[in-house]
Amino acid sequence: MSRRELVTPRRGVSFSDVKNRWKKIAIVGSGALGCYYGAMLQRAGAQVVFLMRSDRDVVSEKGLRVMTPSGNFSLPAVNVAGSSEEIGVCDLVIVALKTTANAEFLKLVGPLLHEDTAILTLQNGLGSDEELAALFGAKRVMGGLCFICVNRTAPGEILCITPGSISLGEFGCPITERLTAVSELFAQAGVKTRMDDDLAGLRWKKLVWNVPFNGLAIAAGGITTENILAQPVLEAEVRALMKEIIEAAAKIGHVIPLSSIEEQIEHTRPMGPYQPSSLIDYRENRPVEVEAIWGEPLRRAREVGAVVPKLELLYALLVRLTKR
Amino acid sequence: MSRRELVTPRRGVSFSDVKNRWKKIAIVGSGALGCYYGAMLQRAGAQVVFLMRSDRDVVSEKGLRVMTPSGNFSLPAVNVAGSSEEIGVCDLVIVALKTTANAEFLKLVGPLLHEDTAILTLQNGLGSDEELAALFGAKRVMGGLCFICVNRTAPGEILCITPGSISLGEFGCPITERLTAVSELFAQAGVKTRMDDDLAGLRWKKLVWNVPFNGLAIAAGGITTENILAQPVLEAEVRALMKEIIEAAAKIGHVIPLSSIEEQIEHTRPMGPYQPSSLIDYRENRPVEVEAIWGEPLRRAREVGAVVPKLELLYALLVRLTKR
Repeated sequence: MSRRELVTPRRGVSFSDVKNRWKKIAIVGSGALGCYYGAMLQRAGAQVVFLMRSDRDVVSEKGLRVMTPSGNFSLPAVNVAGSSEEIGVCDLVIVALKTTANAEFLKLVGPLLHEDTAILTLQNGLGSDEELAALFGAKRVMGGLCFICVNRTAPGEILCITPGSISLGEFGCPITERLTAVSELFAQAGVKTRMDDDLAGLRWKKLVWNVPFNGLAIAAGGITTENILAQPVLEAEVRALMKEIIEAAAKIGHVIPLSSIEEQIEHTRPMGPYQPSSLIDYRENRPVEVEAIWGEPLRRAREVGAVVPKLELLYALLVRLTKR
Repeated sequence: MSRRELVTPRRGVSFSDVKNRWKKIAIVGSGALGCYYGAMLQRAGAQVVFLMRSDRDVVSEKGLRVMTPSGNFSLPAVNVAGSSEEIGVCDLVIVALKTTANAEFLKLVGPLLHEDTAILTLQNGLGSDEELAALFGAKRVMGGLCFICVNRTAPGEILCITPGSISLGEFGCPITERLTAVSELFAQAGVKTRMDDDLAGLRWKKLVWNVPFNGLAIAAGGITTENILAQPVLEAEVRALMKEIIEAAAKIGHVIPLSSIEEQIEHTRPMGPYQPSSLIDYRENRPVEVEAIWGEPLRRAREVGAVVPKLELLYALLVRLTKR
């Protein structure tokens, strides 16, 4: 078994049945993504503490407001903290930091851990699982790939355009009872999840889209996915980059069918003038996750002797373009 | 014999000895390059007519002023024309247009030709020789690659920073007596030239530099050659692009040694914060010679089955980046 169907709340199981396992949950990195999932969990009844910087005062006073396609809700009272020491140990740490802040793992995650604390990183690209494992032990680490479109519209205001789902996997081992319990936690809170035995494979699969679209959106001058696909020579490069990623993943041992190139292109076309997250970061002068999305995949591809000339060039351009 | 030494004026030969062969010379495309060479030829005693648009009135009234490292000179009276009909037939037509204006060849060059008129294109990249040959007959066409640094500082004012030299070749045949006479013409006027049996080879050789440096200067965000070489991952891409061009040229039949990669890099390093011509065009919102420098080389590489993945990606980015 490698991939499982969408997890939905089991009949007759209430949130109180699952929340004993995850009594206290910390959200490390309370941007749009962290706030959205944290708010969904809190709304369902979980005890959530948000580690927060810039929006701390506003959220502490006014709480969170979440707008979703299926309705809006407010959480007037939200636990926010400015440091991990303030939060103390938790049962589940959800890491929703940008990967460009991974150097702060020790400081931000360390104080949250008791002996059995599980860490779920919802970060993009490659590298975070290994970094967390190296610091805190591989056994703690799970990863989730978020297929979601969510923005922070104001301090404490989260707009979820597409709730999508999370694909969950254990780091370095197949699906466990613990992963299933995390999946159940989210499902009970109204967040769709899937589980997979191959977390790294999930990451490579997401890179098949992120590498070309996030990268070309920046390198071709700050353009949307629609602009990319409107230029035949660029669409050809999207396909060629996807092929490089699929072939590198295959050499590493993650099988992604070549047919997914066509699927991903056809899935992207109806998205219209979509701005990949890296493009938004780039435009707003925020750090771009260059190493997680392009650098680390490139290094791993080279390690196994995969031929990735276009990834090399794209990475080099992005290193320079995102230099501040 | 493939390459010849620098041509210098022969002892005892005066300009009047060579100018009988080239009685009337037209400069088509009177930008910095066209004005510089036209002015040098006129100063030596040749009859030169400049086809000129934007600067026509100023130059017609005030003439040309040329500043060079070895001294400045002025030509108070310069023949300028606004149309080729006005100029009439010539013995030598020097084409110094941007390749992005090649669609105007018929209109601009056609009226200048008598039965024996020779055409010398000083344009960059690939394609101009063939386009002129298709329109006016291959026998008329010669090409020259200009290694020069020259700018137009004001209407009628030309600043030559590095006079460099011109590498000349016949289109589709080895060095002829005619090419030698053109070479002599320039040499007598103080312009260093070399001759080569393989004009297309000369063009590919120049592309080894132009493809990476002109391309990455634009695609990496509008940066100088110094900035490119300051970023190790970009320097690696320069080398890799040079290798692609050299291997494509070899497949077509033009041998360029791989050692020229190192030579070109080491030659570029002392140039400091140099802006390749395409970057200047891009920054000043003028058309960039995307097809001549990247598009046509890419198509010819593909025709012979050369593998040029980085050139493909760079070309696709430039097509989009230079779209107005």
